[in-house]
Amino acid sequence: MFQIIKRDGMGRIGKVKTAHGNFTTPTLMPVIDPTDIVLTPREIKREFGAELIITNAYLTLLHFGKNPDLKIHQILDYDGPIMTDSGGYQILRYGSIDVPPEEIVRYQDLISPDIATILDIPTGVNASREYAAETVRITLERAREALRILSNPNVMWCGPIQGGLFTDLVEHSAREMGKLDYKFHAIGSPVELLNDYRYTEVVDLVMAAKKNLPLERPVHLFGAGHPMMLSLAVAMGCDLFDSAAYILFARDDRYMTAEGTLHLNELEFLPCECPVCSSTTVKEIRREPLDEKIKLLARHNLHVTFGELRKIRQAIVDGRLLEYVQIKCRAHPSLLAALKRFMDYSEFIERFDPVTKKSAFFYSGSESIKRPEVIRHQQRMKSRYTPPRQDTLIILSGFGEKTNVDAGDSHVLKIVPPFGVVPEELEEIYPLSQNEVPKELEAEVIAAAAESLENYLKRHGSSYRQVILFNDRSCWGESLVRACQPVAEKLKVIQANEKNLNKLWHEFSAEWIGIFNG
Amino acid sequence: MFQIIKRDGMGRIGKVKTAHGNFTTPTLMPVIDPTDIVLTPREIKREFGAELIITNAYLTLLHFGKNPDLKIHQILDYDGPIMTDSGGYQILRYGSIDVPPEEIVRYQDLISPDIATILDIPTGVNASREYAAETVRITLERAREALRILSNPNVMWCGPIQGGLFTDLVEHSAREMGKLDYKFHAIGSPVELLNDYRYTEVVDLVMAAKKNLPLERPVHLFGAGHPMMLSLAVAMGCDLFDSAAYILFARDDRYMTAEGTLHLNELEFLPCECPVCSSTTVKEIRREPLDEKIKLLARHNLHVTFGELRKIRQAIVDGRLLEYVQIKCRAHPSLLAALKRFMDYSEFIERFDPVTKKSAFFYSGSESIKRPEVIRHQQRMKSRYTPPRQDTLIILSGFGEKTNVDAGDSHVLKIVPPFGVVPEELEEIYPLSQNEVPKELEAEVIAAAAESLENYLKRHGSSYRQVILFNDRSCWGESLVRACQPVAEKLKVIQANEKNLNKLWHEFSAEWIGIFNG
Repeated sequence: MFQIIKRDGMGRIGKVKTAHGNFTTPTLMPVIDPTDIVLTPREIKREFGAELIITNAYLTLLHFGKNPDLKIHQILDYDGPIMTDSGGYQILRYGSIDVPPEEIVRYQDLISPDIATILDIPTGVNASREYAAETVRITLERAREALRILSNPNVMWCGPIQGGLFTDLVEHSAREMGKLDYKFHAIGSPVELLNDYRYTEVVDLVMAAKKNLPLERPVHLFGAGHPMMLSLAVAMGCDLFDSAAYILFARDDRYMTAEGTLHLNELEFLPCECPVCSSTTVKEIRREPLDEKIKLLARHNLHVTFGELRKIRQAIVDGRLLEYVQIKCRAHPSLLAALKRFMDYSEFIERFDPVTKKSAFFYSGSESIKRPEVIRHQQRMKSRYTPPRQDTLIILSGFGEKTNVDAGDSHVLKIVPPFGVVPEELEEIYPLSQNEVPKELEAEVIAAAAESLENYLKRHGSSYRQVILFNDRSCWGESLVRACQPVAEKLKVIQANEKNLNKLWHEFSAEWIGIFNG
Repeated sequence: MFQIIKRDGMGRIGKVKTAHGNFTTPTLMPVIDPTDIVLTPREIKREFGAELIITNAYLTLLHFGKNPDLKIHQILDYDGPIMTDSGGYQILRYGSIDVPPEEIVRYQDLISPDIATILDIPTGVNASREYAAETVRITLERAREALRILSNPNVMWCGPIQGGLFTDLVEHSAREMGKLDYKFHAIGSPVELLNDYRYTEVVDLVMAAKKNLPLERPVHLFGAGHPMMLSLAVAMGCDLFDSAAYILFARDDRYMTAEGTLHLNELEFLPCECPVCSSTTVKEIRREPLDEKIKLLARHNLHVTFGELRKIRQAIVDGRLLEYVQIKCRAHPSLLAALKRFMDYSEFIERFDPVTKKSAFFYSGSESIKRPEVIRHQQRMKSRYTPPRQDTLIILSGFGEKTNVDAGDSHVLKIVPPFGVVPEELEEIYPLSQNEVPKELEAEVIAAAAESLENYLKRHGSSYRQVILFNDRSCWGESLVRACQPVAEKLKVIQANEKNLNKLWHEFSAEWIGIFNG
């Protein structure tokens, strides 16, 4: 049903089969209001390539009533994959809805969407711990009950996760919901956090759920469809997104960009290459009649979101999703904070990250020291690595990764930021063989490299009789010398730099090592 | 002729009047090969909104010969603004051309483009110092000679700057060329550097020229038209760009993105929202006949470049150009290195940067400590600031900027990263009043803030009888305590954090200050 085609970190490209055709994930579902259709599902499919749309079962029930002959595909006049939401958002907004949960399940079974959602109780962000626990308990109870009621084999069901800001409750909710026979899961409650730029809390919420859900099931992040945070959400392993914002924002003259939302009044240029923005001007949009203006803005908002989605998918194909997220998260300081929070989960992320990728590792800022590739290298150096039996250890700092030296019988250790120490015999392994890092290093990177060296020497320093550090002081200062403290009594430091390394090397190498030996 | 409408750092939006209409800068000139037109100038104007195109006078002369009745606008069948280049690139590529420089000037005078370029000698990147000096000398000589020859009042002339990697020669070239009566300047020799991702050298080259050119003249950066580096080039104060790459890349199946160039073979999705990419698929493009495929890729390449240009223009309008560049430069480690190099020129940039902007100051990485706004604040604190006469100095660290405290007769100093110390009485001034910074600070930012505090206390510490530091150790560690060394003998440190600050404050404030006093 859900087949994962490609992975990068926790992000993945997948295929889902439904009764009305297949779709690729990650995907964005434009929200269709069945009572007020501005862009029809067919238009949305044709113009934006949308593969799945979402509508609200509760509103559909209120408006169209229960009619055994009226399926959701007829109501929306659309024969592609359709998902229905249950009215949970209406509960969050209005406190409750007047249809019992089993009725909402039976109604969806009747109208036969491709994916349906049970009626959960959203926790929200202002819930007390008691209330939050109650929303989790009731949602789980309803999820178990729904499985007893439902009978339509063409409908795949989605079990929502609640718990809000209480991550232990989210974990519990995900663990228990994951045991039930649901094909999809949805993570509830991020909408208010997203609206308030509380992205670090979104990271904790999503990661609490993802760490406890069966990873082979697609996950829908409720209410998250803004291009500025889509890449981070995909990197966390979310697969389905919905956007009502494209039309709600349009009605409010708001223009989405991958760096944030701008108001039509602020615009002097249309900062976008979509079909709308490359064929008109700000002035022309402002002059349009209201309905037409809303349509143009809605179409732009969808174009930029689907464009972003394709960029994210291609980044996964290229194995550079995290680098893409590192770029995108600089759009807002709160996103940057969220990225750093996400990188704190790197040991978990590492478990899903492919061991080799087709693209070189790019350094994109100090958070690169927490990249899964870096964590993996350090873990392996710690748990699996044994140095060859050699008397002399030669440490080449920084510039070393590009230098091929003949060190005779000595063991060569290179300092390769942001990875830390790399024994020469491992340097052909991805991504040690293929990485791009600016010469001027950030303080965190220098500190991490020094720590890596110190750890290495603590573990293996005693196996060498002498240690020679070629230190590029202009880059590393005294940090590497200090890191050699565990082998201080047998250390020789040679101040070198990229330019004189070869010269120093020729002067000192074989002969010099001999002298030092003697 | 050139009117600057809006500034942001050294970037600017301007208007240029020509004999065939006006155009806005920064702008991109698609290169038209007069002998092989794939997309016509009219199509380019209509589909991409291009306001200025460029063609090569030397190639035009070879192909069409000298005909007093044949103007460039007829040759290209286009009535909008046209610039001509002179054949300098052909010299760079083939060593020399067979038309004397005065002939190239006279020919352009004859065919009457709106902007014309004298025939310079490109320095290139492999030049010896002697050869580089010679290219500068000859180019200047030709520039002086051209001014004696030219006579067509409808043509505005461009004087190219040479010198290549020898920045002192570039400076000399710019200073001398700037004294001559040219309306435009062009910076030569970046093409090879750009092709090899040697962006830091491009920064030094461009800045050497810009620092010595009359700033009210528009500057063309030869051969720079890739969307991945356009924003950095605009931030350095370049106004005109040309792109032959859109078609050359297309012929080679290369697909431009703002993060770099991808090959059609690598694509599984079209990572773009342009009219081409939102109406077709990778598979469909691959199946097209060769000519059609080239056209589609060329159209995509131009759409993404013009979209990027509009994003850059709007970023200038919003006063967030540097933040935009900080995002974009994370696309490649070499661009990130170039950004850091560019920020080293921040004291110069600061002179052009508006004192207030409409958008909040966003922190986007450790390089933010070199933003012109930060440099300006620090310069003013150093040269203009005198503290009020008060006995007690209260230092609030980090969290302080959001806290309004009644400190009685004391003087309150806040630590506001990345600006450093901000006396309470200045905190309503832009951008101190309006900035967003993640809570978790990078090492460079902590060090810079501590240095700022230490400098303040060295200058003004003696004017206080006592100093109280509310230190949020979780954020700052001991760095601020160490920075208080100049007032160590009258210092009281209170360990506080965001949560207990108000409580501590209430417990200690007026009364406590009195006790401490006594």
